[in-house]
Amino acid sequence: MRHSLAGRAESPMQARILAQLRDEGALSKAQLADRLQVSRTTVAAEVARLAELGLAQEAGPAASRGGRRSTLVDLSPDIRFVGISIGATGMSVGVTDGRLTVLATRHRTSDIRQGPEIVLAAALELVREVMAEVGVDQVMGAGIGVPGPVDFNRGVSVSPPIMPGWDGYPVRDAVSRELGCPVMLDNDVNVLAVGEQHAGVAKGAQDFLFVKIGTGIGCGIVIDGELYRGVNGCAGDIGHIRVEDFGPTCACGNTGCLEAFSGGAALARDAATAARSGRSPALAALLSEKGELSAADVGIAVSQGDAQAVQLIRESGRHIGQVLAGLVSFFNPGLIVIGGRVTGLGHALLAEIRGVTYRRSLPLATGNLPIVLSELGDEGGVIGAARMISASVYAP
Amino acid sequence: MRHSLAGRAESPMQARILAQLRDEGALSKAQLADRLQVSRTTVAAEVARLAELGLAQEAGPAASRGGRRSTLVDLSPDIRFVGISIGATGMSVGVTDGRLTVLATRHRTSDIRQGPEIVLAAALELVREVMAEVGVDQVMGAGIGVPGPVDFNRGVSVSPPIMPGWDGYPVRDAVSRELGCPVMLDNDVNVLAVGEQHAGVAKGAQDFLFVKIGTGIGCGIVIDGELYRGVNGCAGDIGHIRVEDFGPTCACGNTGCLEAFSGGAALARDAATAARSGRSPALAALLSEKGELSAADVGIAVSQGDAQAVQLIRESGRHIGQVLAGLVSFFNPGLIVIGGRVTGLGHALLAEIRGVTYRRSLPLATGNLPIVLSELGDEGGVIGAARMISASVYAP
Repeated sequence: MRHSLAGRAESPMQARILAQLRDEGALSKAQLADRLQVSRTTVAAEVARLAELGLAQEAGPAASRGGRRSTLVDLSPDIRFVGISIGATGMSVGVTDGRLTVLATRHRTSDIRQGPEIVLAAALELVREVMAEVGVDQVMGAGIGVPGPVDFNRGVSVSPPIMPGWDGYPVRDAVSRELGCPVMLDNDVNVLAVGEQHAGVAKGAQDFLFVKIGTGIGCGIVIDGELYRGVNGCAGDIGHIRVEDFGPTCACGNTGCLEAFSGGAALARDAATAARSGRSPALAALLSEKGELSAADVGIAVSQGDAQAVQLIRESGRHIGQVLAGLVSFFNPGLIVIGGRVTGLGHALLAEIRGVTYRRSLPLATGNLPIVLSELGDEGGVIGAARMISASVYAP
Repeated sequence: MRHSLAGRAESPMQARILAQLRDEGALSKAQLADRLQVSRTTVAAEVARLAELGLAQEAGPAASRGGRRSTLVDLSPDIRFVGISIGATGMSVGVTDGRLTVLATRHRTSDIRQGPEIVLAAALELVREVMAEVGVDQVMGAGIGVPGPVDFNRGVSVSPPIMPGWDGYPVRDAVSRELGCPVMLDNDVNVLAVGEQHAGVAKGAQDFLFVKIGTGIGCGIVIDGELYRGVNGCAGDIGHIRVEDFGPTCACGNTGCLEAFSGGAALARDAATAARSGRSPALAALLSEKGELSAADVGIAVSQGDAQAVQLIRESGRHIGQVLAGLVSFFNPGLIVIGGRVTGLGHALLAEIRGVTYRRSLPLATGNLPIVLSELGDEGGVIGAARMISASVYAP
């Protein structure tokens, strides 16, 4: 097994060099000096120190640009990060290298309601599996996303409506103790937004929203290239925005919340009602076969041409679109990425979301606003979580 | 008459010195050196240059701190800015000094629908009056707010629903030509937010919303101390967020928009309906007396104990609260300031807005969230507009 017992960066300049290498790959010292607007001498000194810390290394001569040939610098090939993305009904775990390329990944179903001990133990088991697969017994850091509000500074989950037992649980410290490395905790939509920004459809986007439609519904907000967390760290909690005065009771205690109409749990509930009412032959057949229905079953019924199932998805998309239209008017983002398990239900959902959002927002804000599906799926959470901790490890 | 033909700041350090003096008042060179973390020699050199530019000057010995006595530096007493805040039904104009203290101000009613030539001519007439009152024939710059979307970089108003004739009109260049000074154009809520941040209840706030409830409804967004304008400059356009699927037709063409329920124009419309229906004796009396009703008349009816008028204000506040609750969930601000003419209707409106917002948002986001009325009123727009242009003149 290979060890990576490297230190953290010691100066802002070192952190900037590491971030450049992470985001662009190997660069010559001359290129680094250009990009950071410092002298080659400064770059050479900082790279030498980063090599001592086990974070970067020289990687042979760079291609000639004419004049003196420069030396390529790359991240240490030994850097490994762990990304853990925990949703309400499943988790993804992976190991990445220093550039956040996923080297090994695992996904399994899980139930967030089982509480932090059981869920984190399952996550750590997956972490050990992927670490063994890539042959390391130590990583430089781990990022974790959980499906609810997080006190980012304390590394603790806070009064999460769909996460009984997690309130105040010291997730960060517990995982840090187990893995023996620095850990960062954030909510899953922030982690997914960062992943999409690093390696997905939001690559290079400066102001965008990542909307996750899973069991619950949440939103990651990126402003000027950086995550916006709000004053209490709970920005983006759009699942509890009102769409109607009346409607199903939400986990938060209110009625008429978006999540209670359009989240995966709501879709499963409405599918069961449709099945029992006799309005949906396909869902009725699935219910009698399985004993219960999930949001995914609505997708199956849609693929079988079930009109009622299509109607359920359209209704869901309509309410999501109504909320997104409001956010577009308020926030005027440059891009909206839709992710989460419910997006696996096919194009009817995206079509309805787009239609309502474009129709209900002012033309100036939507004239050039792409609304697209996430490309990364589960891996986005792993990459985002790894990127979050990489930023902390690379920073001084 | 006194001339101020000063230049702009030439370096970021000069801009930082001017911003310190604007926001804190006269400071000694030693204090400036401390705050900007540079040597006294650097401060002395930059202050000397600012004096040549007519922007700052020495202002006598500073109080002794022990050791060598330092020299006080202050902004030039000749600096004058103009702030112009144009609303849908009225405008405020003022002249400020370099610290944005309002030296003279005028307010008059006006109708934005008369188009840019007539409205801007009226504003310029007021500008000349206030300039004459304070005895200057030249100012260093002017800021303007208008009640609709603005292309900030081009200085042009853009397809404003309540501003027929303004689409694409070169407001900035037209006013700049008339006044012979640099001009900045923004929408009125951004200007009001900046004014409130400089001299009102939002002083020192880093992340807050300024919600204007006038004829229309809009929102200025401040993130990390800076205005957030969105990708197309139209962030904060919350008047067209849906609150119901059906309802009165809005100026934007949709139905169910917040503004069509709760703006000043909507309130006037509903007041007339209530008067004609016989449900409101007070409003009926006001209507027969005046021939038409305004939002302010609802306030008069409330003060006369008219139950129907109170009900109108409660309904208005309820819809505003529903939208603000959604924005609190999404944005998690540290403060919400409510301004605009409709806030003159008394405490029933604020009470209803607060009640609904607090009830419909997650506790984590509202635990420590003040929702308060603007303190500055019309003067906030003058100060905000002046501050906007001061930032541009002081910057290199």
